[in-house]
Amino acid sequence: MQPEQPYFAHHPGRFFYLRDDESGELFSAPFAPIKAELDSFEFQPGLSDIKWKIKHSDIELEITLTLSPDLAAELWHVKVRNSDRQSRKVSLVPYFPVGYMSWMNMGAHFDDELNAVVCTSITPYQKLEDYAKNKHLKDITYLASDVKPTHFETSLPRFEGQGGLHNPTGLSDKRSLSDQPSHYEMPACIMQFELDLKPGDESEYNFVFGPALDKQEISDTLELTLSDNKAHAAADYASYIESGKGVLNISTPDKIFDQFVNNWLPRQVFYHGDTHRLTTDPQTRNYLQDGMGMAYVNHEATKQVILTSLSQQKRDGEMPDGILLTPEAELKYINQIPHTDHSVWLTLILESYINESNDWAILDELLSWHDSDDESTVLEHVNMAMRHMCGARDERGLPYIAQGDWCDPMNMVGPKGKGVSGWLTQALSFALQSWIRLSRDVNDANELDKFQETVDELVVIADEYLWKGDWYARGITDDGVTFGVPEDKEGRIFLNTQSWAFLAICQMLCKPREC
Amino acid sequence: MQPEQPYFAHHPGRFFYLRDDESGELFSAPFAPIKAELDSFEFQPGLSDIKWKIKHSDIELEITLTLSPDLAAELWHVKVRNSDRQSRKVSLVPYFPVGYMSWMNMGAHFDDELNAVVCTSITPYQKLEDYAKNKHLKDITYLASDVKPTHFETSLPRFEGQGGLHNPTGLSDKRSLSDQPSHYEMPACIMQFELDLKPGDESEYNFVFGPALDKQEISDTLELTLSDNKAHAAADYASYIESGKGVLNISTPDKIFDQFVNNWLPRQVFYHGDTHRLTTDPQTRNYLQDGMGMAYVNHEATKQVILTSLSQQKRDGEMPDGILLTPEAELKYINQIPHTDHSVWLTLILESYINESNDWAILDELLSWHDSDDESTVLEHVNMAMRHMCGARDERGLPYIAQGDWCDPMNMVGPKGKGVSGWLTQALSFALQSWIRLSRDVNDANELDKFQETVDELVVIADEYLWKGDWYARGITDDGVTFGVPEDKEGRIFLNTQSWAFLAICQMLCKPREC
Repeated sequence: MQPEQPYFAHHPGRFFYLRDDESGELFSAPFAPIKAELDSFEFQPGLSDIKWKIKHSDIELEITLTLSPDLAAELWHVKVRNSDRQSRKVSLVPYFPVGYMSWMNMGAHFDDELNAVVCTSITPYQKLEDYAKNKHLKDITYLASDVKPTHFETSLPRFEGQGGLHNPTGLSDKRSLSDQPSHYEMPACIMQFELDLKPGDESEYNFVFGPALDKQEISDTLELTLSDNKAHAAADYASYIESGKGVLNISTPDKIFDQFVNNWLPRQVFYHGDTHRLTTDPQTRNYLQDGMGMAYVNHEATKQVILTSLSQQKRDGEMPDGILLTPEAELKYINQIPHTDHSVWLTLILESYINESNDWAILDELLSWHDSDDESTVLEHVNMAMRHMCGARDERGLPYIAQGDWCDPMNMVGPKGKGVSGWLTQALSFALQSWIRLSRDVNDANELDKFQETVDELVVIADEYLWKGDWYARGITDDGVTFGVPEDKEGRIFLNTQSWAFLAICQMLCKPREC
Repeated sequence: MQPEQPYFAHHPGRFFYLRDDESGELFSAPFAPIKAELDSFEFQPGLSDIKWKIKHSDIELEITLTLSPDLAAELWHVKVRNSDRQSRKVSLVPYFPVGYMSWMNMGAHFDDELNAVVCTSITPYQKLEDYAKNKHLKDITYLASDVKPTHFETSLPRFEGQGGLHNPTGLSDKRSLSDQPSHYEMPACIMQFELDLKPGDESEYNFVFGPALDKQEISDTLELTLSDNKAHAAADYASYIESGKGVLNISTPDKIFDQFVNNWLPRQVFYHGDTHRLTTDPQTRNYLQDGMGMAYVNHEATKQVILTSLSQQKRDGEMPDGILLTPEAELKYINQIPHTDHSVWLTLILESYINESNDWAILDELLSWHDSDDESTVLEHVNMAMRHMCGARDERGLPYIAQGDWCDPMNMVGPKGKGVSGWLTQALSFALQSWIRLSRDVNDANELDKFQETVDELVVIADEYLWKGDWYARGITDDGVTFGVPEDKEGRIFLNTQSWAFLAICQMLCKPREC
């Protein structure tokens, strides 16, 4: 529910300790938790992996992380190289704490067959119906390697001891890890690889870290990601990332700008558009916006977003507050709170989609409704959405804000059903103009006239009620208080009502279909 | 929801750093987070406070923590003494991290008037109805002192820096704390007191650490706990603890045993009986058991538990799964899960209460019902409870277990309504015998005969269905599987069905009213 979580020393914990087994000296790679000053440090964000190259006390480490398109697993590759002029005896110790798992049956052991530390627990249930659901949870977390470790540890308290994360007792006094399972202690995945490296010698390790339902799932995942298949797994992920390439490719003298436009931008869009923000019930606005972005990566995905959204529209034209992506999904959290702007994004995503695909036929696709088996064209669905929005306005013609619009944190503006949104006044105008332009050749002329009337009306009332001399107010509360105005001590000016006023006006200056 | 939470390095964080301002050497008291080896360490659990006395590098610290009976505040007292033969310049640095508070308006500042670091935030709401509720949350956490600090810090990342909890950057290189507020960083309460102590010199500090709704509440709390009132506050808490003294006081040659019986035992009982496990809806069984314990501390509280519980009984005799202690309380978590044994504890608490109070009149008290305004005596309430329990048995006469009984973690034994409980077979017998004995002179003879018939029946069927040669089984599942038996690989024997068999049999051997 919370947009960001703070980082503590243990979280997220993927650490590699490197110990000189002769001197006992310890450092960690790529940096935390020991945070020793390094001789060199390089971070390389690749297109389908990230890599750290560090050097300390004449030992070089290269750590690479990539993912899998299908499997819930982190694929780590570690190279250790002796760049000293003499032989070195060192221990490489990956330490992947997994945190507190459950108060039921928490433990960990080393599985010889999997060559993995396997942390287990059972998620407790209280309500009967959760018992069946919980059975499908991946209660296991494991760390597997393609090299047999010399020793292993499974217990966080035994490893860290009084020394703590920055100086674990398990590695002090040149000792070896305990090779013991743990029961009802905080589990952790820890391995020790003792190395005897001649000058220039290099050792390589592959690790897989992930959740699993059972041993079979771990075994299946390792089959696909370790040994002979590991190159294949990396290629699979690279090819998945490649599928998120944007439609635009530029080459300028500024290579960083090229990277930004060619890779960074489409990657952001692809991430959201492909994962739906890791939810099964994205907020309707987010789903449509993310779908708009996908028009410039893979417009088939955008089409799917349009059709999925409109098939969940209510017969009266209103869009739901979230879109259900699977049969078991339900509207949670913010999607139970009425927001008034979702339909604005329907015309914008349609315009983006048609601009990229030229697929005008989509307007004729037949779709049912959330609460009716009637089939209506996409054109009619969007007309209904616009009509509904035009109707949801007060006696002045200003659109209601209800419990929120695009700016979720707006607090207590319109819960009584009277407050109105300045931004939505402009956004509705923008959406209607977009729709008039897009559907001019195929829509009913009367319908278009009515929409145009509303556009004209919105221009006037936006100026009448919202223009406060130097800028547009953000809205008017249930109690008639206009806010986002010069007199406000806090929240004097909102960007949204200035930038969208500009957008709405620009559109008016464009001739239809020329924009 | 989870019975215990793990401890991380930061949690719970009440640390005192001590820095030698000349050498820069740092240690922490009473031990964590630096965990340096100390010259001496003493922990003194008092009756109404806890105390640590430590010595390191010729500096002595005495740290005392007590609470308040009425205020949500920790009262800390710290003495620093120079036991060196030369003068010492040191900094005392209390570090009370408060953790991640909220993503809304998180920050901290030093309030000169309060002489306190005040960490603020706003708990976000999503559902409209939570907005009003959240307004009453104590979103502030503060640390106040009765001595002006030389410097202060309000930001966890600025204080710990790259050095971390065990070696905070804010104290490295002999530097002083920043004296800055923090905004949208993880807040923390940190003060620095620079001391110049001659040999034998001592400095004393009082700190108050707690949550608050607003500045006024902090101010009110400090008024009652610092300056002239601080002795009074400590006495108040000692007198509250004194009110939890047990009815038994022994003096034997074994002083530790005396402490155990005279202090430890009543304290456990008082803690649960007075706080109701810090919930507004204790599980009925827990509430009655905790009330039983209070019979040996303050039997008026036990009476209140009996009357409160029975006034929430259903008209058909069944007890609810939790007892509501305030008008706003609602049954949460485990109290929404049907358990079958609550009424067992009614007769046991009544017997404890009357044994201690001799208040036979309680049986005549009139009480209404949860779902009826009828008034019935306590005697009739308990008769109904016993009748209901006697009725909730299968065709063999064994009591149903439904979703659980005393042993909550029993998994999927009787959710289909057929599984039965071995323990409850014995416990019902025990409860009925207790009730027959207690009410013999005042209860209806026919009623008592019927209860006695059930007792006689339970003896026979317990042996018939549950005795498995060497011990009693724990129950029989919905699918007719008897468990807690010699053939079981896990859960072969349950203590409950052995100890309560013994209790039930012992009772039968006692003559009525002689036990």
